[in-house]
Amino acid sequence: MTSTETPVNNGVNVEALLGARAALTEAPEAAKFEWRDTCEWLNGTHSNSTVEGFFGLGGEQKHRTKYTFDADHPEIFASEDNGATPVEYILVGLAGCLTAGVAAVAQHRQIQLRSVSATVEGAMDVRGILGMDTDVRNGFSGIKVSYKIDADATPAEIKALVAQSQKRSAVYDIITNPTDVRVEVV
Amino acid sequence: MTSTETPVNNGVNVEALLGARAALTEAPEAAKFEWRDTCEWLNGTHSNSTVEGFFGLGGEQKHRTKYTFDADHPEIFASEDNGATPVEYILVGLAGCLTAGVAAVAQHRQIQLRSVSATVEGAMDVRGILGMDTDVRNGFSGIKVSYKIDADATPAEIKALVAQSQKRSAVYDIITNPTDVRVEVV
Repeated sequence: MTSTETPVNNGVNVEALLGARAALTEAPEAAKFEWRDTCEWLNGTHSNSTVEGFFGLGGEQKHRTKYTFDADHPEIFASEDNGATPVEYILVGLAGCLTAGVAAVAQHRQIQLRSVSATVEGAMDVRGILGMDTDVRNGFSGIKVSYKIDADATPAEIKALVAQSQKRSAVYDIITNPTDVRVEVV
Repeated sequence: MTSTETPVNNGVNVEALLGARAALTEAPEAAKFEWRDTCEWLNGTHSNSTVEGFFGLGGEQKHRTKYTFDADHPEIFASEDNGATPVEYILVGLAGCLTAGVAAVAQHRQIQLRSVSATVEGAMDVRGILGMDTDVRNGFSGIKVSYKIDADATPAEIKALVAQSQKRSAVYDIITNPTDVRVEVV
């Protein structure tokens, strides 16, 4: 690596994040967040979800804009394929979380990123969801994430970036560890 | 409930699903699916994911169209909010999966749905992802899903629909049970 006069800039405001950490140490109640989605069934396996408001820092917050997402099953399941499948949304969340983490950790470690891409593959035996075999789980049997990263860093430093992102990733935790989900009809 | 001459139609082709189940009994290898996502880092915590191809029924498959998704962190995390947060994608996947299941089970049980909506709330203490307290997990501390369903059925039948959907849901399984995730740098 050669020294450069250009400061490292991955577009992550690490100072603000460190400031938030200091502020939350004083006021841990403000760290309690609630993320939300509302979902409307349209027809068949097709639904539309909306993400807009959330709670955090002690008050109601809003995204800059409303985000909507269609979910559906593909045509080979006799559906209309009006959107990504629900399990693909899990892969999107995992990739987005780990990738944001890579950028944030790189900024903190003063490593300039040039490009970061990931492929995520989730293996699933659909005999589970079809209720054909109770020994087959409904979800993924396993997920593999492969990163390709071009950065001003050694291969070992790049591996360490990805490892630290995993360690702090919300979605990696959600998928690898159990979370209580309560479903009710109102 | 009054009898009606209109056949129950929730837009789910149950016959095709039962046919698939019979076919997969004969050829269990065809039940092995691989769902995929490719993700490109753009800047800061902003990334863009693409969902298009997948593997299943013994061969390469494609969605009708390419689906792309922006993920980002919100402005209160000093980010630009160019998309839903990664954890909100998890809620979208959960809602989409349970809702598709409700429609499929209702069709199978000959229950006409009129409307189905769900609100999903995921609680999170962000001191976990900020690395402030190792006793605080990174992911959701818990998720609550509330369904509002209008259907030609008794409240007990509606509750049973939702319970059966949970039982067969891929995403419910992914979130409530641990899944192995391998992350590598290539």
